[in-house]
Amino acid sequence: MTAWVPNEIDHVGIAVRDLDAAVDLYRRTLGIEPVHREVVQDQGVEEVLFRVGASYVQLLAATGSETPVGKFLERKGEGVHHVGYRVDDVAVTIQHLKDEGVPMVDESPRPGSRGTTVAFAHPKGFGGVLVELVQEGS
Amino acid sequence: MTAWVPNEIDHVGIAVRDLDAAVDLYRRTLGIEPVHREVVQDQGVEEVLFRVGASYVQLLAATGSETPVGKFLERKGEGVHHVGYRVDDVAVTIQHLKDEGVPMVDESPRPGSRGTTVAFAHPKGFGGVLVELVQEGS
Repeated sequence: MTAWVPNEIDHVGIAVRDLDAAVDLYRRTLGIEPVHREVVQDQGVEEVLFRVGASYVQLLAATGSETPVGKFLERKGEGVHHVGYRVDDVAVTIQHLKDEGVPMVDESPRPGSRGTTVAFAHPKGFGGVLVELVQEGS
Repeated sequence: MTAWVPNEIDHVGIAVRDLDAAVDLYRRTLGIEPVHREVVQDQGVEEVLFRVGASYVQLLAATGSETPVGKFLERKGEGVHHVGYRVDDVAVTIQHLKDEGVPMVDESPRPGSRGTTVAFAHPKGFGGVLVELVQEGS
């Protein structure tokens, strides 16, 4: 398969105000268990990942009100923040999206959580949906 | 695994104004191909599914302005509308969520697209996220 065609929905990123309360909610209601917790300073988030089959549910809390997720929570409240697609090669995918006229937040790959390499495309390119590309570590 | 623990993210449901334009966008940019198209009168939507690994991307257009997706588009614009979790048994999952205090949109299972059985939980139960339970046909 082409290196820029997503092979899985990597994760659904959900912005929450209270990370511990949200983790408890997802454990109780969906019965899923957290597998990873990490502060990603670069993105201004603390995140918790739950594995669901081939994908993750990613709960995101802002590390401050001036971060992207902090501003999102202020503007829109809690809810789905972005969709992450798993690709074989983020750099190749960025180039393909640029060739197709999609505006990128990240013009080059950067480190994500759990050892991944990621890049965000601008929501304007995907009908209001913030799209993240995720390449897993080898 | 317990029948109410999701075994995959079944789909991400994305509300769009122009279904054909959005299908073209996803084909061009992500390189994914539609595998199913259906009008679900019961839900007031026309939907197109793209398979991505174990999951689907579901593009949703409203069949009218007074439908749930029509109202969503009016109020919030295009973007992620709901998250679908694949479970073994929707009826059992509804009961579990009710036991955990989650308000349900659907108190009993109803037919979804492509022969599935579905139920929606109220966003109030999941921190602003509209959650759909999906049981595949046997």
